[in-house]
Amino acid sequence: MTDSLNSFLFSTPEMTRVFSPQAQVRAMMRFEWALTCALEKHGLAEPESGSVLQSLLDASFVDVDSLQREARDAGNIAIPFVRQLTAVVKTLDERPSRAIHLGATSQDILDSALVLQMHNALNLLNHEIERLDQAMIRQVHAHRDALLTGRTWLQPGPPITLGLKLAGTLASLRRNRDRIHSAAQHAMVLQFGGAVGTLASLGTSGVAISAELAQILGLREPDLPWHTQRDNLVEMVQVLAVLTGSLAKLAHDIALLMQSEVGELSEGNAEGRGGSSTMPHKHNPVACAAVLAIHARMPGLVTTMLHAMPQEHERGLGLWQAEWEIVPEAFRLASAALAYSIDMAENLQVDAARMLANFDDLRGLTLSEAVSTALAPKIGRTAAHEILRKATAHATGEKQHLRDVLKQLPEVTAHLSSVAIDRLMDPRAYLGSAQRFIARVLGEADAES
Amino acid sequence: MTDSLNSFLFSTPEMTRVFSPQAQVRAMMRFEWALTCALEKHGLAEPESGSVLQSLLDASFVDVDSLQREARDAGNIAIPFVRQLTAVVKTLDERPSRAIHLGATSQDILDSALVLQMHNALNLLNHEIERLDQAMIRQVHAHRDALLTGRTWLQPGPPITLGLKLAGTLASLRRNRDRIHSAAQHAMVLQFGGAVGTLASLGTSGVAISAELAQILGLREPDLPWHTQRDNLVEMVQVLAVLTGSLAKLAHDIALLMQSEVGELSEGNAEGRGGSSTMPHKHNPVACAAVLAIHARMPGLVTTMLHAMPQEHERGLGLWQAEWEIVPEAFRLASAALAYSIDMAENLQVDAARMLANFDDLRGLTLSEAVSTALAPKIGRTAAHEILRKATAHATGEKQHLRDVLKQLPEVTAHLSSVAIDRLMDPRAYLGSAQRFIARVLGEADAES
Amino acid sequence: MTDSLNSFLFSTPEMTRVFSPQAQVRAMMRFEWALTCALEKHGLAEPESGSVLQSLLDASFVDVDSLQREARDAGNIAIPFVRQLTAVVKTLDERPSRAIHLGATSQDILDSALVLQMHNALNLLNHEIERLDQAMIRQVHAHRDALLTGRTWLQPGPPITLGLKLAGTLASLRRNRDRIHSAAQHAMVLQFGGAVGTLASLGTSGVAISAELAQILGLREPDLPWHTQRDNLVEMVQVLAVLTGSLAKLAHDIALLMQSEVGELSEGNAEGRGGSSTMPHKHNPVACAAVLAIHARMPGLVTTMLHAMPQEHERGLGLWQAEWEIVPEAFRLASAALAYSIDMAENLQVDAARMLANFDDLRGLTLSEAVSTALAPKIGRTAAHEILRKATAHATGEKQHLRDVLKQLPEVTAHLSSVAIDRLMDPRAYLGSAQRFIARVLGEADAES
Amino acid sequence: MTDSLNSFLFSTPEMTRVFSPQAQVRAMMRFEWALTCALEKHGLAEPESGSVLQSLLDASFVDVDSLQREARDAGNIAIPFVRQLTAVVKTLDERPSRAIHLGATSQDILDSALVLQMHNALNLLNHEIERLDQAMIRQVHAHRDALLTGRTWLQPGPPITLGLKLAGTLASLRRNRDRIHSAAQHAMVLQFGGAVGTLASLGTSGVAISAELAQILGLREPDLPWHTQRDNLVEMVQVLAVLTGSLAKLAHDIALLMQSEVGELSEGNAEGRGGSSTMPHKHNPVACAAVLAIHARMPGLVTTMLHAMPQEHERGLGLWQAEWEIVPEAFRLASAALAYSIDMAENLQVDAARMLANFDDLRGLTLSEAVSTALAPKIGRTAAHEILRKATAHATGEKQHLRDVLKQLPEVTAHLSSVAIDRLMDPRAYLGSAQRFIARVLGEADAES
Repeated sequence: MTDSLNSFLFSTPEMTRVFSPQAQVRAMMRFEWALTCALEKHGLAEPESGSVLQSLLDASFVDVDSLQREARDAGNIAIPFVRQLTAVVKTLDERPSRAIHLGATSQDILDSALVLQMHNALNLLNHEIERLDQAMIRQVHAHRDALLTGRTWLQPGPPITLGLKLAGTLASLRRNRDRIHSAAQHAMVLQFGGAVGTLASLGTSGVAISAELAQILGLREPDLPWHTQRDNLVEMVQVLAVLTGSLAKLAHDIALLMQSEVGELSEGNAEGRGGSSTMPHKHNPVACAAVLAIHARMPGLVTTMLHAMPQEHERGLGLWQAEWEIVPEAFRLASAALAYSIDMAENLQVDAARMLANFDDLRGLTLSEAVSTALAPKIGRTAAHEILRKATAHATGEKQHLRDVLKQLPEVTAHLSSVAIDRLMDPRAYLGSAQRFIARVLGEADAES
Repeated sequence: MTDSLNSFLFSTPEMTRVFSPQAQVRAMMRFEWALTCALEKHGLAEPESGSVLQSLLDASFVDVDSLQREARDAGNIAIPFVRQLTAVVKTLDERPSRAIHLGATSQDILDSALVLQMHNALNLLNHEIERLDQAMIRQVHAHRDALLTGRTWLQPGPPITLGLKLAGTLASLRRNRDRIHSAAQHAMVLQFGGAVGTLASLGTSGVAISAELAQILGLREPDLPWHTQRDNLVEMVQVLAVLTGSLAKLAHDIALLMQSEVGELSEGNAEGRGGSSTMPHKHNPVACAAVLAIHARMPGLVTTMLHAMPQEHERGLGLWQAEWEIVPEAFRLASAALAYSIDMAENLQVDAARMLANFDDLRGLTLSEAVSTALAPKIGRTAAHEILRKATAHATGEKQHLRDVLKQLPEVTAHLSSVAIDRLMDPRAYLGSAQRFIARVLGEADAES
Repeated sequence: MTDSLNSFLFSTPEMTRVFSPQAQVRAMMRFEWALTCALEKHGLAEPESGSVLQSLLDASFVDVDSLQREARDAGNIAIPFVRQLTAVVKTLDERPSRAIHLGATSQDILDSALVLQMHNALNLLNHEIERLDQAMIRQVHAHRDALLTGRTWLQPGPPITLGLKLAGTLASLRRNRDRIHSAAQHAMVLQFGGAVGTLASLGTSGVAISAELAQILGLREPDLPWHTQRDNLVEMVQVLAVLTGSLAKLAHDIALLMQSEVGELSEGNAEGRGGSSTMPHKHNPVACAAVLAIHARMPGLVTTMLHAMPQEHERGLGLWQAEWEIVPEAFRLASAALAYSIDMAENLQVDAARMLANFDDLRGLTLSEAVSTALAPKIGRTAAHEILRKATAHATGEKQHLRDVLKQLPEVTAHLSSVAIDRLMDPRAYLGSAQRFIARVLGEADAES
Repeated sequence: MTDSLNSFLFSTPEMTRVFSPQAQVRAMMRFEWALTCALEKHGLAEPESGSVLQSLLDASFVDVDSLQREARDAGNIAIPFVRQLTAVVKTLDERPSRAIHLGATSQDILDSALVLQMHNALNLLNHEIERLDQAMIRQVHAHRDALLTGRTWLQPGPPITLGLKLAGTLASLRRNRDRIHSAAQHAMVLQFGGAVGTLASLGTSGVAISAELAQILGLREPDLPWHTQRDNLVEMVQVLAVLTGSLAKLAHDIALLMQSEVGELSEGNAEGRGGSSTMPHKHNPVACAAVLAIHARMPGLVTTMLHAMPQEHERGLGLWQAEWEIVPEAFRLASAALAYSIDMAENLQVDAARMLANFDDLRGLTLSEAVSTALAPKIGRTAAHEILRKATAHATGEKQHLRDVLKQLPEVTAHLSSVAIDRLMDPRAYLGSAQRFIARVLGEADAES
């Protein structure tokens, strides 16, 4: 049984596994195994020690209950873990047990294990991002010409296309991908410093063993240990929060366009999805809600990570510990946000006819800028703006089409023929550079032509 | 196995149980049972329906795995819960199944169940607060005269007593207790509004059934349903965060006084507590660290609760869901912070000799204010302050006792005799109203005399 | 010239004045004047000292530029302020200058001055809240019967009335008023402790002078000084954040109902309000935007206040300072949120016809629950829900009115006559307890009848 | 007069100027000038229009009071700014006035002006970072061998050197520099999209004019406008927050080492710096406090930026506005944190004798790990750890030097000679890889040898 019945909204099964207790002890075990191998290579552990520990890589020997019980006094799980590991190794062979954890301190194993888990987590995320990228590309292609009301301040404006709107998210997704890539390069780094960051218990071999250890684990070696310099870790959580913010932008827009009064887009409506316990007719935007819920939680995680930065001297008093559940939570939330976004992007329902009908319902009002721009060279922008402000107010009040109002205004017809007015009222003729922008985002060969 | 190996720091077993999946489905079951009873009383459910549901109050019929699986599509766990409940009731008796959940919507059961869980959580918290209060009273009594260096900006100042310092925390604890009490009164309120807050499916009986339901559950009835007015819930999380902040103030001070260079206070050092995986001599302030870690996480929870307030119309889209895991987390963290604080308060080690020695090590410098205050009426505050600024700089530079420096200064000895200077250098004579303040906090009869 | 051109959105002129530099030095001056009076009364200041300082209550002698310059080294503005005050008093009369600031430390004057400013700020807020309350009462009355689509998850549901929706905000406003009142009672408290909270430099007169000082300033006297116990201050900022969250809920709903596709409500459209620099037809919800912007900033302020709680020993190192600009900012933002909300509440435009038309456009779908509730006693809730789920899907697909679909379904007509179906399709008959809830919030005599 | 007397702590004069009202209107003016030039080049503005606007680049024509007054109704300052600009241009020459703002919307000018201001802000920050980097390099060099107690959990551990501790901050500073550089590259990008991001009012010339405009302003052109994709801006604030967190780590350590009981380091004590209004002897860590205060405020700004990401459709309703005062604040705070850190780094007072004396005061306890490591190969790590745990407890209890205790223990002397024990008690021999780590951070040629 899981710890929270509501976690279904806030993680994916895959990411939950990456940060499960079992995965954590396996990552810790991996660190101890690699350390023993490195020590062995430099003559600080008995020959064959590494292979003895290798047989324990699945960490199935760990008694989690006693681990947690002892952790309450020890202050962390590394101390009882090393104790359990040493005990089990001794039952196999006494000699390898002598060098277990040599040179390391609790934070080394906990931080490095976290980095190893993050490595797996990033693989998952990158796969999800790639899948979302592909789905978004398809949707941008599919709807590049689909006319949609542009909306500012939740009020209607000139037309855009659905493809342009989605291209904005696609472009942000790529920036987020780059940020995550960059943060991952910073964060995939070994922590190994011993008690206070000097590796003193390894004498003069510290640097060599550190290099060996990093290589075995497939991590970068830092210039110096980072036990109380947490910036890379904070950066990692921050880029996940920004990614989630970008996804929330999309979810927010879809939820708004899914309102029955708008009805232009919809989440895919799989059977049984988004029902209500009391309202038979409901089709709720479950995926949008999940992404928005996740977005509301991410800033809190970043807050804690930033708050926790000024860790005292060579090991923090509380602030290090504050990170422990936050970093996994950030990955779980980001992964769920991506999964729900993929679902939305792959199954998006578009009602192009409604999009057009909604635009037409505005009776040309939202093309007021087109007319004012056409008038401006003749009478100046301020005067043109004022004429249109009055004309649109009149059209609104009288529920007339702006076209018809304009054709009655001498100050307009003096400069624009009836045909010109009709042309200005064609939304397809007022899309400006939309297609050029889309082509750029899609990286099309002629984007810059 | 638990979801996080590090949760040992961030909850108590009791509070974990209050918000466990089992406890949550029991609370949901309690709501449905009470609703059926209320409906039955008003003729909207078949006779004996309530007693059929009563037999299911332990909610052991719930299949959590399928609950979670279905929740992913349904968007919440209430819908599959009601489905499972209806199915199991039908196996017992068809008639009571007809009125299950009548009048209610998913949010009614989820919100009210949360309130019922919070009710239990508050009982736990109040018990912990009471225990901490008692321990703090004992410590204030025990150390009301124990001289301690006052410290501002982490620099030494005039003396206080340890009792005074602890009385500050005791007074804040009472304010926090009052705030929690007040927030609890606001939050222990039924949510029951049906689909959109009108209880329309109950016809004209809505208000009567709502009153009955509140009474059965032991909750207050609100003026109107609060499905998208979340202020009481936010307040609850906020008062827990303030409580934790006050506890962190104490933990921070203890950790600072526990530094080996200060060595005045110490957490109790139970056998095996606060060791290091590599440094045999270590005795780490594990409890202080836990409280400070918790404090670093609380603001993030409050942030999410506030962020989530503007829930749309008659049910939020994501913002309601954002609260689900936050409220339980706030209670778990607060409970753990209290448990660690109780441990500290009950087992506090005080080294009164070291407290005095540290004060004496400052060679009278921190009594500069006493002298300057004595001189001021004679030569003015500014001149007195300046004399002492120079005298203390001289004493620091020459590593002399301030007393000896002062006795060499004609501008001082012109106004103060040697005996007077000695008296001014007596820290016990420079405690001002400390005892009066302590007496007030302890509510002693003569506090105001 | 102001420091930020965008501050027009984020304060009111009145609240800006309460926390202006001039008002701050006046509040500091008020503290020093009152302290001198209290000292004089107890023989610790020369006779007539108080009246000398009284002549300086407007603090016009302060040279702000040098105050700020010196503050950079001093670490706060109190030190140079006391210096300037002492100098100016000396030019008037040497004797009163001797006792200036006696017994106090920088934090005493800064904290108590802040409390005095908060006192004025609370008066402003309470006045704004009262005005908003009156406006909301009028709107609830005016629209208590105005039928409106209930909306959950941004999808349509059964009907409510606009009065019921607004009553929800009115009820939350009263809860917020109570919270602010309670927090104000906690926070309107003198800070006076001297160097380390013992008032040692006042000898045995500390408590008496403290009581006198509190009385002169019209503040409550605390049990003991609260220099590093900041919970009351944090509570104050928190209740302002919750208030703002409740106002943001209203603003969010209005902005959504103001979408052209919904068009049910609108901010008042004063001439020139909410225009666009390029789109002549625009009428932007400027007030809604302001409230939502403010809401997005408040959680950050609360975060800082909570973060800053564990202030070291007898005076914090940085965390106290972190509060300085946050508390005024919280009041400014809250005041602006109220002002914009008052504007919205007083000038709300309601298009009741559109509200009704939008409901009718849903072709009875949102009354599915009414029918399912009517069927349930006959065939069970699950079966009824399933019939309606299919009927509404059919009605949606075929763009038929639900009424007409239902009349074609034998499993419905077997239980419900055509007349009964028509009655179930009347939204006015499906408002449940809405009027009772409204009456309760309005405190109407017959609310509980 | 400034808006806040406490702002002296929270900005530098230079950064205050970058985000002053005057600088903002100049940046807006720069945008309008550049736009006019671009339009002119493409025949959309009259010849010589650019040079007319060029004469107004100092924006001295702006009436700030009326700007702010009108902004309250307009919702932003761009609309009245364009009005004032147009009016003043008309007084010079009517023709250029016709094309002012053509193609642009309010957000284009406000966002792009912000980017231009950020460009100047980044120049300032980079200069400060460079200066801090140089100061830190000097300090690392100067103190690379200075022995210092390593401290974990605020408890003493094995030795490090001050150089190693400072090298940790130096390394983080470089990572922060890289992050800021990367964020700057992302953020220094033109915003130009017109009403809804299509540049429709420029017909087919949109992309060409956008490119021209970007070139004139020295900004990167984005693939498409980013009006509601705010990730780059959020990233910018985030990297400033991380920088501040790293600086707070240093400030926190210095403040702790500056405690009188530790007394190892000190901020520079310029005359008059860090005094107290009541305690003549005080020398407060003013710069540390300022950095820590700033650190407590930064997470709140990041919270708001993240919260504000899901901006609706083609222009946000409130969330965009929420950013307006946050971005400048983040730069001001970061700049002040750097300035205080430079002050600390350039004037750091180091008491190397005290550092050594403090270490010696621990009577060898903190070298327990050295002995346990030496014993481990002979008797196993667990047994060795246990012997030392007891020996250190004994030494603590009896106030003996660990050396002397060890020499009395047969289980130790069986494996270690008296000379060997003495050597193990030499802290200089227990610095492990400290020098190698320092050399790496300093980029010394032989660092990897």
